[in-house]
Amino acid sequence: MKFYDCQFAPSPRRVRMFIAEKGLDIPVVEIDLRSGEHMKDPFRTINPQCTVPVLETKEGHHLTETVAIYRYLEELQPNPPLLGSTPLEKALVAEWDHRTEVEGFYAIAEALRNTAKGFKDRATTGPENFAQIPDLAARGRRRAELFFKTLDDRLGESRYLAGDFFSAADISTLAVVDFGAWIKLEIPEGHKNLKRWHDELSARPSAKL
Amino acid sequence: MKFYDCQFAPSPRRVRMFIAEKGLDIPVVEIDLRSGEHMKDPFRTINPQCTVPVLETKEGHHLTETVAIYRYLEELQPNPPLLGSTPLEKALVAEWDHRTEVEGFYAIAEALRNTAKGFKDRATTGPENFAQIPDLAARGRRRAELFFKTLDDRLGESRYLAGDFFSAADISTLAVVDFGAWIKLEIPEGHKNLKRWHDELSARPSAKL
Repeated sequence: MKFYDCQFAPSPRRVRMFIAEKGLDIPVVEIDLRSGEHMKDPFRTINPQCTVPVLETKEGHHLTETVAIYRYLEELQPNPPLLGSTPLEKALVAEWDHRTEVEGFYAIAEALRNTAKGFKDRATTGPENFAQIPDLAARGRRRAELFFKTLDDRLGESRYLAGDFFSAADISTLAVVDFGAWIKLEIPEGHKNLKRWHDELSARPSAKL
Repeated sequence: MKFYDCQFAPSPRRVRMFIAEKGLDIPVVEIDLRSGEHMKDPFRTINPQCTVPVLETKEGHHLTETVAIYRYLEELQPNPPLLGSTPLEKALVAEWDHRTEVEGFYAIAEALRNTAKGFKDRATTGPENFAQIPDLAARGRRRAELFFKTLDDRLGESRYLAGDFFSAADISTLAVVDFGAWIKLEIPEGHKNLKRWHDELSARPSAKL
């Protein structure tokens, strides 16, 4: 196996943390997004969508979505379970992992990529260029703020996102909340549940990698 | 269990088809999106995100993301498997199901909701109103066209999306391709693989429900 990573980017951090929590040891290839290494061969042939993370599986297949990499590694190494144990737990991990990506990650990415100079004509990932849409940046920021409130409410109901057990949904959400710093979105003062959870998550050794 | 459905909407169709392929019999509650039933109580208390599908589980929990509903039902009723059998198959189903939602469904939804009069100030789902962004509609349409090409390329490599076995990724993608009609996006003439797959999928009894 081989893990194509980028140390400063939010999505590969999810996989890095998942691998560490599983106690797996997978060779890493660092891809330098700043120099555009992801847009050129040889990486572009490995992943035509030009994104990280990518996992090269034992079978030699390249998985390019975090949710697929999570699933593959969970099946190979079931302990500790990070995608839930009972049917309901598994469903709730899938639910919160998905919500955090769609309502959190994409919202912040919209806010960032549609304004920052470094993303001019690169408002989306992928091989095709798209112009920035400033109105979308404002909407993304507002959606991200709403999602932080959703997270705070949820974490008032349970210790972790999917229930009283640590899961991949927490890993994904930590990466998303920290990604907020890229658009200067901090956890608001009143979001005490989110702050409590963020402090706990950030203290895990896997969060520091 | 209880399944909150809406006959004409693309996302609940995924769950309807999944349930049929599993041979499950789950009581259905039809929610009328046209009259705004999803924005008002009692449904709004059931799902504060105001979206369908929703599955009320045996434990009385309301799952609101299709990916979570798929996972829950697969665990309850493993046969026939619709989320893959081997670790790699499971990962590839997760990968293509996710891609079809993000690159296909959201792209078409962007194109539709940011222009159609019926979605004025309702450019996203959810309880909060957002103004339409016409530039985003154009971008969504272009992204959807690119994804149809991605699907055609992929279906030139294998019979179904995740490999040579029918899966939930096919169910989701059928709903997405047919959702294209809402923005007058047809399968282009040259996309013979996608056409072949679409004909085969559309002939399944579960596709007609």
